Amino acid sequence: MAQNDIERLIQLLARLPGMGPRSARRAALHLIKKREALMLPLGTAIQRAADNIQTCSACGNLDTSDPCAICNDPKRDATVICVVEEVGDLWALERSGAFKGRYHVIGGTLSALDGRGPEQLNIGSLRGRVVEGSVTEIILALGATVDGQTTGHYVAETLAGSNVKISRLAHGVPVGGELDYLDDGTLTAALQARRPAG
Amino acid sequence: MAQNDIERLIQLLARLPGMGPRSARRAALHLIKKREALMLPLGTAIQRAADNIQTCSACGNLDTSDPCAICNDPKRDATVICVVEEVGDLWALERSGAFKGRYHVIGGTLSALDGRGPEQLNIGSLRGRVVEGSVTEIILALGATVDGQTTGHYVAETLAGSNVKISRLAHGVPVGGELDYLDDGTLTAALQARRPAG
Repeated sequence: MAQNDIERLIQLLARLPGMGPRSARRAALHLIKKREALMLPLGTAIQRAADNIQTCSACGNLDTSDPCAICNDPKRDATVICVVEEVGDLWALERSGAFKGRYHVIGGTLSALDGRGPEQLNIGSLRGRVVEGSVTEIILALGATVDGQTTGHYVAETLAGSNVKISRLAHGVPVGGELDYLDDGTLTAALQARRPAG
Repeated sequence: MAQNDIERLIQLLARLPGMGPRSARRAALHLIKKREALMLPLGTAIQRAADNIQTCSACGNLDTSDPCAICNDPKRDATVICVVEEVGDLWALERSGAFKGRYHVIGGTLSALDGRGPEQLNIGSLRGRVVEGSVTEIILALGATVDGQTTGHYVAETLAGSNVKISRLAHGVPVGGELDYLDDGTLTAALQARRPAG
């Protein structure tokens, strides 16, 4: 077919998460159809993002400035740091609007199986932030998985003796969730952590 | 958050078919993580495709040359034209490797409901190709939908009196398909069009 520009586009689109060869072909055709409205703006947006986005040297967030807008915001509480695995988790917490402190993105979890040790993660600098700053509380907002919990224990250990309060997210029934569909572990945790009603 | 470059990227990715806000965020994070290996090449590929891809003025295919590589290929049979709805259908037939003639992409189907008439489709030039050229057969490879079949009838009508053989794809059991999962219409068509076995 000698459609090399098209085939290359499809190949690269197919490497996006959630895309396969079939959906990549559909996406490529859609882009070509919407040349002015979508294809050119997307090309520009990718180029701009590649040029401008950097990792915040303080917290590990992605932003166009370093330090990032969250670390730079004087209205945010610098005494509370929320530790998350990935930038996507930080975004999820920001969308909830429930947290007004700062973050620390460690970039994954410890994993014996995948051979990921502490030196591969952005944990070392957290103790520095705690010791140097006026931090009073660390919230571990890590996944409720074995690796996430192991990582939480490790982070807590590295902060031992720093006189900072360490908390973790509550386990329980998701808001809007039906009991029938919940796993035993969540139900057990929700029962044990029951709160006074009303 | 003032992450305007990131948010713009996510918004545009979310407009690809099969993507939503959630998968667009995942895709954006994936791109930023794989900056050298995926993000920069994809930006370039989109730009190149936007610059170079055009619609073949003969058949309606998309390619970097006009006429397209298929119309230009002297080894392909110029006496048979396969009429398809969209470029994606042409690609599917090319992947099968079963067709060695030329194509005519009409760009959709007639649709009374959506108000799409013949003037919105690339049908007019087909008669010209048949009359001017040495075309002996037109294969209607249109969708087995009401609109697809209506469009097929209309295309056949516009070719009336041009002394060209008009055929359509066979209906039947998909290869690898189980009878149990097939709809009644397909089973009826497959029964009526039964062929001598062995």
